[in-house]
Amino acid sequence: MDDNQVLIFDTTLRDGEQVPGCKLNTPQKIEIAQQLELLGVDVIEAGFPISSPGDFKSVIEISKNVQNAIICGLSRGVKKDIEVAAEALQYAKRPRIHTGIGTSDHHIKFKFKSNRERILEWAAEAVAHAKNLVEDVEFYAEDAGRTDNEYLARVCEAAIKAGATVLNIPDTTGYCLPDEYGAKIKYLVDNVRGIENVIISAHCHNDLGLATANAISAVMNGARQVECTVNGIGERAGNTSLEEVAMIIKQHPRLNVFNRINSKLLNPISRLVAERMGMMVQPNKAIVGSNAFAHSSGIHQDGVIKNRETYEIIDPVDVGVNESMIVLTARSGRAALAYRSHKLGYTLTKLELDKVYDVFLDYADRKKEVVDEDIHQIIDDAKIGHKLEA
Amino acid sequence: MDDNQVLIFDTTLRDGEQVPGCKLNTPQKIEIAQQLELLGVDVIEAGFPISSPGDFKSVIEISKNVQNAIICGLSRGVKKDIEVAAEALQYAKRPRIHTGIGTSDHHIKFKFKSNRERILEWAAEAVAHAKNLVEDVEFYAEDAGRTDNEYLARVCEAAIKAGATVLNIPDTTGYCLPDEYGAKIKYLVDNVRGIENVIISAHCHNDLGLATANAISAVMNGARQVECTVNGIGERAGNTSLEEVAMIIKQHPRLNVFNRINSKLLNPISRLVAERMGMMVQPNKAIVGSNAFAHSSGIHQDGVIKNRETYEIIDPVDVGVNESMIVLTARSGRAALAYRSHKLGYTLTKLELDKVYDVFLDYADRKKEVVDEDIHQIIDDAKIGHKLEA
Repeated sequence: MDDNQVLIFDTTLRDGEQVPGCKLNTPQKIEIAQQLELLGVDVIEAGFPISSPGDFKSVIEISKNVQNAIICGLSRGVKKDIEVAAEALQYAKRPRIHTGIGTSDHHIKFKFKSNRERILEWAAEAVAHAKNLVEDVEFYAEDAGRTDNEYLARVCEAAIKAGATVLNIPDTTGYCLPDEYGAKIKYLVDNVRGIENVIISAHCHNDLGLATANAISAVMNGARQVECTVNGIGERAGNTSLEEVAMIIKQHPRLNVFNRINSKLLNPISRLVAERMGMMVQPNKAIVGSNAFAHSSGIHQDGVIKNRETYEIIDPVDVGVNESMIVLTARSGRAALAYRSHKLGYTLTKLELDKVYDVFLDYADRKKEVVDEDIHQIIDDAKIGHKLEA
Repeated sequence: MDDNQVLIFDTTLRDGEQVPGCKLNTPQKIEIAQQLELLGVDVIEAGFPISSPGDFKSVIEISKNVQNAIICGLSRGVKKDIEVAAEALQYAKRPRIHTGIGTSDHHIKFKFKSNRERILEWAAEAVAHAKNLVEDVEFYAEDAGRTDNEYLARVCEAAIKAGATVLNIPDTTGYCLPDEYGAKIKYLVDNVRGIENVIISAHCHNDLGLATANAISAVMNGARQVECTVNGIGERAGNTSLEEVAMIIKQHPRLNVFNRINSKLLNPISRLVAERMGMMVQPNKAIVGSNAFAHSSGIHQDGVIKNRETYEIIDPVDVGVNESMIVLTARSGRAALAYRSHKLGYTLTKLELDKVYDVFLDYADRKKEVVDEDIHQIIDDAKIGHKLEA
């Protein structure tokens, strides 16, 4: 693997599906997995096989139907879980078991009623057991975001010794700030023996709205895999958004990294996942929201009409959207009205535009949006403008 | 003002309302403004008075109906705009004019067809003109995110000399990464004469999903005002989310700053704005999404039942949500099923729970969510469990 490549690990079908109301059936999961592969995702986390017979079956079927991406199955750090995961992955061309244990004092004390030394052994045992079954083993240190760095480094070193190929450092509760999460990754890079031989993975949650920023901070500090979901869905406030990470990496060459995502497929897969899971995307969602490329204020519309890059850093076509939308509202200026009128076939003089604009504002103050029919009506009522021949 | 206070500048009624389909009438705007004041917002940007008669009227009425918050009106850096803004603010107890101009080469060249020296003079003239009309003048350097720091510092210095009390450094296109935006603020702190006498304001857009992270990075580097909207609404992918910034500051004492937001009102105002504007909030939105405190995976449910803080960093009650939701799906474990059964009045032995759990998983693989009626049915069919007396 190229040192500058950031692997995209999609967990839409595992962490994303852990959402109330999001349950998919097996054919739907296969459909999404195949689209994820087309999108260029490197790893597909297909499910948590021990959690239910339905999930077990889905991991089997996805394994049979995906050709190139690594197929990953989640398990807790217990033998039975790991064995069931391996069984579910038996048809995968490139299987990966994702196993681990909580490492924060909070998890150790309240969840496991255990102690640090026992958890350290437990982590190594889980990885070793998985390694007997598959070559590619990802270890997760759950709640790493709240785990003290020195102990976390010891756990990571033990996991590497036991055969882990990937170290996942989850900010399980979504608590970290970007500088803190980045510093944690850097601490591991600097202090864990053998870390240069494994891939560090960022797995962030969005409880404070920082999942994407944290993942990028991790990449800037040495992580080379980002775990994410389409539309940022996932438990509670969700996970890092695949589309945001992919586009930040693409738009910021100074990061000096790349990924294999075909960005033109980002909007189509966003719609597919939203529909199949019944999880709608808010209009103001970055990259894939219905308003992400819509302009309604006069200042912005005027700027975009003069030169798209005045207010847009991404060409909508690059992410699978046809064109920027100029929406006419009470915030729109003369330039936008003239632009739309022209598209409808009217050429207005400056004086005509002034006259029509006042009527337009009156419409706009009464309606949420002024549509093409309104403009025809306004221009018709004013008895001005020269309708061009089609 | 306390050096450690971060002022919350809400622009839901201006930048938020610049959204296709979001138009509010004046009574709705007054209602939201009054709730924003109750929430503890320091500044309310009430509108862009010159943009339409309806907006002009709204700024007048909001000014009359708000008691303590500063009321701010937006204007371009032209005399007529500034005068109309001042007129609309005539009834405000604490009026502020927000004026400015684009400072990036992109804006200077394509939008204004001008040059740097002329824009510098223009900025100073606009601030001076506003200062003749009100005491509190906020200057914005539009597209500051893409403006080179040295020139930006010169523009800021000119604005301060002309009387600006607040310097707004907008990342208009949502392009900056947090480290870059923070470094820009730090550059200004270190290089602009007189900056210690004014407040630096962060105004970020969410095109790459980084608006909140950028605002926090600015605060860490000296900004003491954050411009934001409820639910993060706004043009394109929206603005920094008020609720995210407020809770990050509250949850991270190491930032050593505070704000005046009454967090218990965050969810009520989120619902009010979503309803009035017809802009729905996605379930996985941080802090205010319907799933923000919902747990459906077995591992998480078990953890939360044992101790809430295992998977939650925010007590839902602190942001106006009644309690964490334990949703039963195919990802749920025995602990969640026992917990819910107990809430429904059943006490199950371990063996009974095992028996019921298999039936439960079968239900869950077929349904999105297992509801209380299903549990009654399952336990009833199994002829087990001891229904407690109410």
